[in-house]
Amino acid sequence: QGLNLDMRRGIRTGIPEVVFGAGKSKKQLFTAVKHLAGRQQKVLVTRLGADAGNALAQEFPEGRYFEVPGLFELNSSIDLDHPWNGEAEAMIISAGGADLPVALEAYACLEFFGHTPGLVSDVGVAGLHRLFPHLPKISKARILIVIAGMEGALPSVLAGLCPVPIVGVPTSVGYGTSLNGITPMLAMLTSCAPGISVVNIDNGFGAACFAFKVLSRQRAESS
Amino acid sequence: QGLNLDMRRGIRTGIPEVVFGAGKSKKQLFTAVKHLAGRQQKVLVTRLGADAGNALAQEFPEGRYFEVPGLFELNSSIDLDHPWNGEAEAMIISAGGADLPVALEAYACLEFFGHTPGLVSDVGVAGLHRLFPHLPKISKARILIVIAGMEGALPSVLAGLCPVPIVGVPTSVGYGTSLNGITPMLAMLTSCAPGISVVNIDNGFGAACFAFKVLSRQRAESS
Amino acid sequence: QGLNLDMRRGIRTGIPEVVFGAGKSKKQLFTAVKHLAGRQQKVLVTRLGADAGNALAQEFPEGRYFEVPGLFELNSSIDLDHPWNGEAEAMIISAGGADLPVALEAYACLEFFGHTPGLVSDVGVAGLHRLFPHLPKISKARILIVIAGMEGALPSVLAGLCPVPIVGVPTSVGYGTSLNGITPMLAMLTSCAPGISVVNIDNGFGAACFAFKVLSRQRAESS
Amino acid sequence: QGLNLDMRRGIRTGIPEVVFGAGKSKKQLFTAVKHLAGRQQKVLVTRLGADAGNALAQEFPEGRYFEVPGLFELNSSIDLDHPWNGEAEAMIISAGGADLPVALEAYACLEFFGHTPGLVSDVGVAGLHRLFPHLPKISKARILIVIAGMEGALPSVLAGLCPVPIVGVPTSVGYGTSLNGITPMLAMLTSCAPGISVVNIDNGFGAACFAFKVLSRQRAESS
Amino acid sequence: QGLNLDMRRGIRTGIPEVVFGAGKSKKQLFTAVKHLAGRQQKVLVTRLGADAGNALAQEFPEGRYFEVPGLFELNSSIDLDHPWNGEAEAMIISAGGADLPVALEAYACLEFFGHTPGLVSDVGVAGLHRLFPHLPKISKARILIVIAGMEGALPSVLAGLCPVPIVGVPTSVGYGTSLNGITPMLAMLTSCAPGISVVNIDNGFGAACFAFKVLSRQRAESS
Amino acid sequence: QGLNLDMRRGIRTGIPEVVFGAGKSKKQLFTAVKHLAGRQQKVLVTRLGADAGNALAQEFPEGRYFEVPGLFELNSSIDLDHPWNGEAEAMIISAGGADLPVALEAYACLEFFGHTPGLVSDVGVAGLHRLFPHLPKISKARILIVIAGMEGALPSVLAGLCPVPIVGVPTSVGYGTSLNGITPMLAMLTSCAPGISVVNIDNGFGAACFAFKVLSRQRAESS
Amino acid sequence: QGLNLDMRRGIRTGIPEVVFGAGKSKKQLFTAVKHLAGRQQKVLVTRLGADAGNALAQEFPEGRYFEVPGLFELNSSIDLDHPWNGEAEAMIISAGGADLPVALEAYACLEFFGHTPGLVSDVGVAGLHRLFPHLPKISKARILIVIAGMEGALPSVLAGLCPVPIVGVPTSVGYGTSLNGITPMLAMLTSCAPGISVVNIDNGFGAACFAFKVLSRQRAESS
Amino acid sequence: QGLNLDMRRGIRTGIPEVVFGAGKSKKQLFTAVKHLAGRQQKVLVTRLGADAGNALAQEFPEGRYFEVPGLFELNSSIDLDHPWNGEAEAMIISAGGADLPVALEAYACLEFFGHTPGLVSDVGVAGLHRLFPHLPKISKARILIVIAGMEGALPSVLAGLCPVPIVGVPTSVGYGTSLNGITPMLAMLTSCAPGISVVNIDNGFGAACFAFKVLSRQRAESS
Ligand SMILES: Nc1ncnc2c1ncn2[C@@H]1O[C@H](COP(=O)(O)O)[C@@H](O)[C@H]1O
Ligand SMILES: Nc1ncnc2c1ncn2[C@@H]1O[C@H](COP(=O)(O)O)[C@@H](O)[C@H]1O
Ligand SMILES: Nc1ncnc2c1ncn2[C@@H]1O[C@H](COP(=O)(O)O)[C@@H](O)[C@H]1O
Ligand SMILES: Nc1ncnc2c1ncn2[C@@H]1O[C@H](COP(=O)(O)O)[C@@H](O)[C@H]1O
Ligand SMILES: [Mg+2]
Ligand SMILES: [Mg+2]
Ligand SMILES: [Mg+2]
Ligand SMILES: [Mg+2]
Ligand SMILES: [Mg+2]
Ligand SMILES: [Mg+2]
Ligand SMILES: [Mg+2]
Ligand SMILES: [Mg+2]
Repeated sequence: QGLNLDMRRGIRTGIPEVVFGAGKSKKQLFTAVKHLAGRQQKVLVTRLGADAGNALAQEFPEGRYFEVPGLFELNSSIDLDHPWNGEAEAMIISAGGADLPVALEAYACLEFFGHTPGLVSDVGVAGLHRLFPHLPKISKARILIVIAGMEGALPSVLAGLCPVPIVGVPTSVGYGTSLNGITPMLAMLTSCAPGISVVNIDNGFGAACFAFKVLSRQRAESS
Repeated sequence: QGLNLDMRRGIRTGIPEVVFGAGKSKKQLFTAVKHLAGRQQKVLVTRLGADAGNALAQEFPEGRYFEVPGLFELNSSIDLDHPWNGEAEAMIISAGGADLPVALEAYACLEFFGHTPGLVSDVGVAGLHRLFPHLPKISKARILIVIAGMEGALPSVLAGLCPVPIVGVPTSVGYGTSLNGITPMLAMLTSCAPGISVVNIDNGFGAACFAFKVLSRQRAESS
Repeated sequence: QGLNLDMRRGIRTGIPEVVFGAGKSKKQLFTAVKHLAGRQQKVLVTRLGADAGNALAQEFPEGRYFEVPGLFELNSSIDLDHPWNGEAEAMIISAGGADLPVALEAYACLEFFGHTPGLVSDVGVAGLHRLFPHLPKISKARILIVIAGMEGALPSVLAGLCPVPIVGVPTSVGYGTSLNGITPMLAMLTSCAPGISVVNIDNGFGAACFAFKVLSRQRAESS
Repeated sequence: QGLNLDMRRGIRTGIPEVVFGAGKSKKQLFTAVKHLAGRQQKVLVTRLGADAGNALAQEFPEGRYFEVPGLFELNSSIDLDHPWNGEAEAMIISAGGADLPVALEAYACLEFFGHTPGLVSDVGVAGLHRLFPHLPKISKARILIVIAGMEGALPSVLAGLCPVPIVGVPTSVGYGTSLNGITPMLAMLTSCAPGISVVNIDNGFGAACFAFKVLSRQRAESS
Repeated sequence: QGLNLDMRRGIRTGIPEVVFGAGKSKKQLFTAVKHLAGRQQKVLVTRLGADAGNALAQEFPEGRYFEVPGLFELNSSIDLDHPWNGEAEAMIISAGGADLPVALEAYACLEFFGHTPGLVSDVGVAGLHRLFPHLPKISKARILIVIAGMEGALPSVLAGLCPVPIVGVPTSVGYGTSLNGITPMLAMLTSCAPGISVVNIDNGFGAACFAFKVLSRQRAESS
Repeated sequence: QGLNLDMRRGIRTGIPEVVFGAGKSKKQLFTAVKHLAGRQQKVLVTRLGADAGNALAQEFPEGRYFEVPGLFELNSSIDLDHPWNGEAEAMIISAGGADLPVALEAYACLEFFGHTPGLVSDVGVAGLHRLFPHLPKISKARILIVIAGMEGALPSVLAGLCPVPIVGVPTSVGYGTSLNGITPMLAMLTSCAPGISVVNIDNGFGAACFAFKVLSRQRAESS
Repeated sequence: QGLNLDMRRGIRTGIPEVVFGAGKSKKQLFTAVKHLAGRQQKVLVTRLGADAGNALAQEFPEGRYFEVPGLFELNSSIDLDHPWNGEAEAMIISAGGADLPVALEAYACLEFFGHTPGLVSDVGVAGLHRLFPHLPKISKARILIVIAGMEGALPSVLAGLCPVPIVGVPTSVGYGTSLNGITPMLAMLTSCAPGISVVNIDNGFGAACFAFKVLSRQRAESS
Repeated sequence: QGLNLDMRRGIRTGIPEVVFGAGKSKKQLFTAVKHLAGRQQKVLVTRLGADAGNALAQEFPEGRYFEVPGLFELNSSIDLDHPWNGEAEAMIISAGGADLPVALEAYACLEFFGHTPGLVSDVGVAGLHRLFPHLPKISKARILIVIAGMEGALPSVLAGLCPVPIVGVPTSVGYGTSLNGITPMLAMLTSCAPGISVVNIDNGFGAACFAFKVLSRQRAESS
């Protein structure tokens, strides 16, 4: 199948091999899940459409496919039901209701890696008053994952208000000049408020990896 | 010289002919100023570098060249000295100190057309607390001209907080992913906060024209 | 569902919360409509494909789904049947027959906000003589919403001919170098005729919000 | 010098070899001019800055450097002084005063090839009334070269009003969203008015070549 | 339906109103065809997918829908069957077999306007020897329409070999860096061989309009 | 059908005519295959979706359609089953499992031309240790075809480690900022490690053609 | 001067106000430095060309202008002389010698904020063996700032090899397809190796701010 | 100075370390040249403007600075004087006279590496007859480096005519839609004629490295 799974990735980098589902044939997906399940037990596949996701869930009945974030997991304890925590070392803040799939991808990945994050949803700049009640708890986090489509202004606003480093995740929510997420990505990268770094469009997974590495280093150091 | 000045523009559109200085030869600029001065008396030339601007000021000693906004005027009563008004029908709000040239271009043009605007400078989202004291007065304006470079988030924040229509002016302030103003322009166009429309990058002149037309229609109607 | 509806938006900004339908799950759409209907009664959802739109119309039988502009409304008195007014404070002018969906989105939103606009359709620059009979009435409006795809030249022509401020709406009508609306958007932004500001591609909603804010300020002031 | 001049081009294509001046060293320019002068006598070099242009004029005192269009000629009878003809088989129409260098490049090239064109300048869409008096004569031409920067709307307007085929020449006049001429180029290419074809940005030379070929074919046919 | 058909276009510009089919509802298409058929009798609709095209053919049984070029006609005498002429005043030359839909759009439009063109297909630069036998006849044409996707080199090659003016039509044939036709369009615009002008990507209609206007002017003059 | 197959291509260039399947009608594909089969016997068609591919396989039962690389062949001896060779004059190295379709397109084309390449799959920079065991054999090849999506870093790493010239093939694997393969393409083109040249996105065919030409010249010379 | 310095930024966000030097007039720069020096004593100005930088150094003789990174500081203890530390909580790794200005901007900013980083220079992927000796110490850091121009592959390679979170800084080093840093930026954003987030092109300042916030949170937590 | 020269590069990759001159300070350049001269004796620095190049030539009087290709060399035997060979294993073909700097960069680099190439200049598609006399000798080469700006059509034409693999080098010669070389680059990448691979814009160095690696492998194999 042309697959060469990286079983030592967790040891080398602190993040286990996670399967990138997009563009793989079902045959490749089945092989990858079976192989990983046999070695590292818990398995995560990202960016799966309903068709491939349901096929995996049928092939591996102990696994679950989460349609909103497009994830398949096996042997992990991912739990996406809300209410979500309003306070955690890693807080996920999303700007609009349509950003939820990306927020849940980040949420699930952090859970998969072993950290339970918090999540505050739909508090974008069109109505900033929705954000302010959450600020005190947000400001206590170690790292923020801030998710926004359209003009992507929420990371800038938060970076000007609190001392927590922010991983910005631009989303493809919007139309026309949002350019499928290019615009919020560019906006976050050129923010006038320092303390923001950015991952790929819709990349909840990448933000979770980065945040988990930051949290892991902290724990390692403080011991 | 290939020039065909539009002497009836003020009557047709409410905005008199203003000379676009960039890319014109000195010969063309002298001809245009002389011609307009002879007809409509007050003359405005925009987007003039120091070299062309000073040449005009030498040729027409009664005129003045303003280097920061790159404007030359003759027979008008433009006055750019601060303190600027904190309250006016048309309020200009700028995000950063480096946006001043564009803010002053808008300011001077409105004065040239016959309206004295207000101006609040350097209140961008990196420190939103600088904006809040001005909100009550800003919220009484008829129209806001909101100027921002980098990620261009200030119009979004203001549109979510007050009922005044906003003309966003993206600026070329920034570097790298600000793409010489393309990024704040795209961001303003795809804002999640409704009530914003946008003019060209660094186009203080265009924002002033639009705002003046809005103010003019209002007065006409109320009489 | 990750939704946090902004019930105070109308009071703060003069424009009530309108649901952005694209990218939301049916579950999210039902929740949003039910929630808003319970609070502010009249509800508007924009950018809905036929599938989601009809599902909403089935779930809320008192509501209506308008397929051409992709809108769902509840408890409002939107009426899109023509003949449309040829004279109004806010006039909508569209360039081509294929721009009608965007024109009707702007039309419906203004009605939803409480203003009945006028609408003149298919008077683009390929046959300018179609525009001229409407000029006298157009010139009396307080604000124009001018909609055009392809090269987007209509706002420039109108701005040179009348004193009314123009909100340009570029559309994705065209192919190849129209770049899904990027070209008319860039063209409107760099118009040589002053008095134009621009909203996002196909954004009839945004143009209506801006125009309504302009009209509201005028009324407030004249009282 | 790495040069291989195409002496048979005039015979093959009807357009003699013209030297592209940009990016050539002075050594290369001198060699090219000397070589061509020895063979086909009349010589034209385009896109020359003042430095290279004056060097050529000094080296070949019988030649002339025209600074506005950036051209050097030898042994031809180019004459750029106005008044220009208002009627001709090939009419050049330019939108703004700053488009003059491109208009004169087209003008000079047509003269060099043996045709005397007409030229009407600064009649862009910001004041269309300036165009209308010229329409009757323009409509009698065999081909129009229509030059415009910024939003490039003039070709669309003309194509809707007269039966003459139009070669659109976008110019780099403008700033910000005019994207150095990309915007008027895209706009002309996606015009809703049929009968327009387009050449490179600022390419007065190319428009003249195309127009001359059209005129030549006509003459050939009518004999 | 928001339609305002331009019945006087043929008289003004020499090209009758042709309906742009893309993005119009079936209701709009039926109305437009019925309206035009009642006035100018022969009707042409372009850019129609199979669904809309077949619906028109069913509604108007005397009309015909041509699926390859996506055209519907009524009361005209379009005939696309080959063999096509190898010699004509307007010659259409296409580079690859997959460019045929665009070539036939140009072919049909010229026939609709009243001129029978020639057509030589699949003679692109990957095998230039296929082009050479056609050169003598091609070189006698009054105008060439040269159609190419991918790198779009065929117009350059032809412009260097013959004295006929060339209208280049870039096509969306290709993938990856052909950028849906942007690359051949840019290539044709920046050709080193003079005598080429360019229309929109896949725009056989536009090339035919331009060519027909050129041919019409020629005939007018020679009488 | 507008087809003009290039039967002499193999003789002129060393690479026989291969049919580009995308955008051709079934009628055109059948004609092309029948025509080529009658002349040069072995036939290859690239870039075929399942629908067109299966139609060809049904029409020509002796042929085979390979769905993963989207190829149809007739009378050749293409064999894509692994294990693949780990050593060969032309080695194909692919970065991720999802790049397999492109790797197999290159593989099949080389086989079709008469060379059996090697293939090492899924050894991208996320886990470079997977590459190192293959380095000694890779370093003995005459040419490498290195395939990578996302950031496209694998060619850079290999070019820094071994003396074999590399043909980089960027793929459209990825999302967001991978820009459908534009990003790895740009990255490979601007590599800091010399010895890389690049073909079109997903263009396994083009890489195979180039590599085969390199191998052919070598053999010719050494005799 | 239109300046409104944010004196409370250090308290709110942990990062004191730093003056963005580009595009400010000398008058504005003098005012800003004087104002900040009077309040928070130590002052940092970024992105200063030699002209403005030397003017500041002359106006404030106790300050220093560092030409390579384009920084001016007053009352801080920035020291850029090497040898630099090979081990630190925040390690800066740069790919090429020409990336030094950006590396030193990050270095100086971290020192200004109170952290002494390490720096390893010129260890890019063209010669990966230069990197390997540093890996053990690099792997002990809490955060890496990895700086690369051209194809920007170094962050990917490092992320695959060690567990430290990486802030990627794309630089404008390169030409052509490096697109002034857009290419390495896109490449870092779409890396196949998880654990990377990205800041603006050439933005050593932004990387330092983000890293310092990460380090600060860690210290706060461990106490 | 932040430099870490890669002394083992020649052994690993067959191409010795060559200094990238752009963006390095004079201090860095002097250090690099001195260091390399001490180890590998012959030194090459690329992409040097006249200022830096002359400074190097003054510091190292035995070295030479070649202004046209912007190269500095020490202890090598580079000789750029023409006549150049018309036949060689590696033939450099350039389209226009203004492409000479890139052609000479490739020429000098190949000489530096130990191979004397041939060079045929100014034979672009505007006058293809200039190319044909050279075809027999060109067709005997092992590899072609084909250099073209503007529309970059020359590699396509050559790939259709001869069996030699082609390394295309797009140049920044041109203006407007040549997009500083992006257009010929895209065109070469999407050529319909197989057997072309492409390097960065103006990258004569990269083409020479690739060609030299190809030639080296051939020799190794044939022994
Ligand atoms: N058609 C539309 N175009 C642009 N913005 C819209 C549109 N419809 C609603 N919105 C705005 O989009 C914002 C985000 O939407 P939501 O995801 O519903 O919270 C809302 O607050 C609306 O102001
Ligand atoms: N295939 C086509 N490509 C470009 N323009 C077209 C095409 N077909 C028709 N048109 C033009 O598009 C204009 C706008 O179309 P409509 O929306 O039908 O008014 C018409 O006036 C036609 O001149
Ligand atoms: N997968 C492919 N990618 C790029 N070019 C191809 C591919 N397959 C075939 N070609 C080339 O595309 C050219 C044009 O295709 P055709 O339309 O079949 O004449 C052919 O001559 C082939 O050299
Ligand atoms: N080199 C830099 N890159 C990006 N942002 C910066 C840089 N230097 C300062 N800034 C930020 O830019 C913001 C706007 O700058 P100012 O115009 O000085 O108010 C400041 O608040 C800083 O946070
Ligand atoms: Mg919301
Ligand atoms: Mg500030
Ligand atoms: Mg119409
Ligand atoms: Mg004018
Ligand atoms: Mg073919
Ligand atoms: Mg993998
Ligand atoms: Mg180095
Ligand atoms: Mg030449």
